Amino acid sequence: MKIVYSDDQRLHALRYEMSGGEPTPCFEKPSRADMVLEQVIKRNLGEVLEPKEYSIEHVTKVHDSGYIAFLENCWPAWEAEFGAANDATPEAFPMHDFRHKVPAHIKGQLGYYSFDLAVGLSAGSWQAIKSSANVALSGADIIASGERTAFSLCRPPGHHASAEQMGGYCYVNNVAVAAQHLRDKGYKKVAILDVDYHHGNGTQSIFYNRDDVFVASIHGDPDYEYPYFSGYGDETGEGAGLGCNLNIPLTLHTTDWVVYKEALQRCIAAIKEFDCDVLLISLGLDTFENDPISSFKLKSENFTEMGKLIESMQLSTLFVFEGGYAVEDLGVNTANVLLGFQESMA
Amino acid sequence: MKIVYSDDQRLHALRYEMSGGEPTPCFEKPSRADMVLEQVIKRNLGEVLEPKEYSIEHVTKVHDSGYIAFLENCWPAWEAEFGAANDATPEAFPMHDFRHKVPAHIKGQLGYYSFDLAVGLSAGSWQAIKSSANVALSGADIIASGERTAFSLCRPPGHHASAEQMGGYCYVNNVAVAAQHLRDKGYKKVAILDVDYHHGNGTQSIFYNRDDVFVASIHGDPDYEYPYFSGYGDETGEGAGLGCNLNIPLTLHTTDWVVYKEALQRCIAAIKEFDCDVLLISLGLDTFENDPISSFKLKSENFTEMGKLIESMQLSTLFVFEGGYAVEDLGVNTANVLLGFQESMA
Ligand SMILES: [Zn+2]
Ligand SMILES: [Zn+2]
Repeated sequence: MKIVYSDDQRLHALRYEMSGGEPTPCFEKPSRADMVLEQVIKRNLGEVLEPKEYSIEHVTKVHDSGYIAFLENCWPAWEAEFGAANDATPEAFPMHDFRHKVPAHIKGQLGYYSFDLAVGLSAGSWQAIKSSANVALSGADIIASGERTAFSLCRPPGHHASAEQMGGYCYVNNVAVAAQHLRDKGYKKVAILDVDYHHGNGTQSIFYNRDDVFVASIHGDPDYEYPYFSGYGDETGEGAGLGCNLNIPLTLHTTDWVVYKEALQRCIAAIKEFDCDVLLISLGLDTFENDPISSFKLKSENFTEMGKLIESMQLSTLFVFEGGYAVEDLGVNTANVLLGFQESMA
Repeated sequence: MKIVYSDDQRLHALRYEMSGGEPTPCFEKPSRADMVLEQVIKRNLGEVLEPKEYSIEHVTKVHDSGYIAFLENCWPAWEAEFGAANDATPEAFPMHDFRHKVPAHIKGQLGYYSFDLAVGLSAGSWQAIKSSANVALSGADIIASGERTAFSLCRPPGHHASAEQMGGYCYVNNVAVAAQHLRDKGYKKVAILDVDYHHGNGTQSIFYNRDDVFVASIHGDPDYEYPYFSGYGDETGEGAGLGCNLNIPLTLHTTDWVVYKEALQRCIAAIKEFDCDVLLISLGLDTFENDPISSFKLKSENFTEMGKLIESMQLSTLFVFEGGYAVEDLGVNTANVLLGFQESMA
């Protein structure tokens, strides 16, 4: 399968994130994508392509335009006031009963437009964020051109980003942008399957009221795991979207491949029932047993079987890279999913 | 006037706060109260009393009981999982469209119950927070016993804390707890005047729908200043409380005593019109020209005049200590307000 990747994505590199009450080196760092790229090349997955350029309207179809302007303009405003020594990071967030008004000052905007401390912006961030969205869009166009599958090696990831909030290392929701693009290309019904360890709260939120995009997610129980405030089993969509959202939260420390596979089969059954024209996978590898911030117990060989199971749906399938932080194994596990899929195709 | 103070309040001392993208020694620290206590003793303001003990029901009359249980139980839960090396601090906050469900895990709860990074909990925090509320309640009872005025030297401060969220160094809203206590003691109409540099969003939020407590606040324009998401001039109360909330946001770097005094006179006129039985002052001194985190230009002698103007309302008046971070001058400025009031009384 074709792989889309851009070196510009390396331009997003933050100094640290807050973890357990302490500034900690970022788990989401440029070397994550390097490891994946190295493995997919080594194992001959397919040709590596540069993304095409897309206008920002492709992004603002699923994101608030004020939010996107903020992502672009935040760093210059921050740097002008606070200098370049520290990343632009949020400090104060809207209270539960806040009014939905965007403050004038950049610090207020940082809080308005984010929901955690795992996001910041520095000099190269916007270029990398745009590039990551272009990587997703280019993957979607490969599918639209008739290929059965493709891999968008996006970084930073996207599935936590909602229409107007960044969080969880995510800024633009790459998979949502790609899904919307496929809708606009004429695909009537799109399904997104999120296999990242964390609930894809942003993706859920963007499509929660729509019946043309089905969103299924398997993840650590949000009662005990980030993002805490969405991802529960009773969130099934709203309005026209009722029944078009499926969450399968799983127990933190006991979920191995046996448990996971059953959840995956439930998702596959639901996606078949939805009867979509095209499938997107939010491909997070942080379900791996050695992932430093997660607690599922999947082994490297399980990812090969995951790829095969996904292929069994017989759908055109775009893989969009999300999380996964066991950097040494990340490349191997990602390649296992993709090769599991590709080798089943034959 | 009588001063209520407890050494137990010293038990709340955090390691650092996040400021400008960098961990920074806390501005809100035990020495703040020391400086104030030293000055009010030195200048013979009055007798210093220990607070009485009050049941927690005095606090849960204005706070969500799940929130208060969280404040009490957070540190043991945090310490059991993460050890005592770091303060318990929030990482991920509810998104704009979150569901109002309290997560099971302590990290999720920390996010649910807070709205910024200037709050944490460590081993002694709960004892200090309770003690600070008792200091406010004891001050209210001094007023109820017939004294014209009293000073509750509370720490940590309270005015940013809402019914179910901590933030801005605040946990229990001391002035709101005292105001409610005075209502329960038979005072029919209570006014709160907040002269802290920052908008008292918690106090506003707690009483926003009520017509028995008038809340007036003069503060830095929230479009450009913390807490960013409330404190605008068009927030005037809701339902029964419509017309019982007055915000006067002022321009950040140009507000001196001339500008401030006019705003104060507007508040005094509004409080007179409300015709209350008792007055509480949220006494923050961070309007001072040398305050490290603020940008008004009040001078030490202006605080004496502030005390005189407040006294001119001829009301029973409880002063409740809030912010102020220019530690060297904080004691002098606080004593200036209180002596300005006391010396006018004669
Ligand atoms: Zn993840
Ligand atoms: Zn303040």
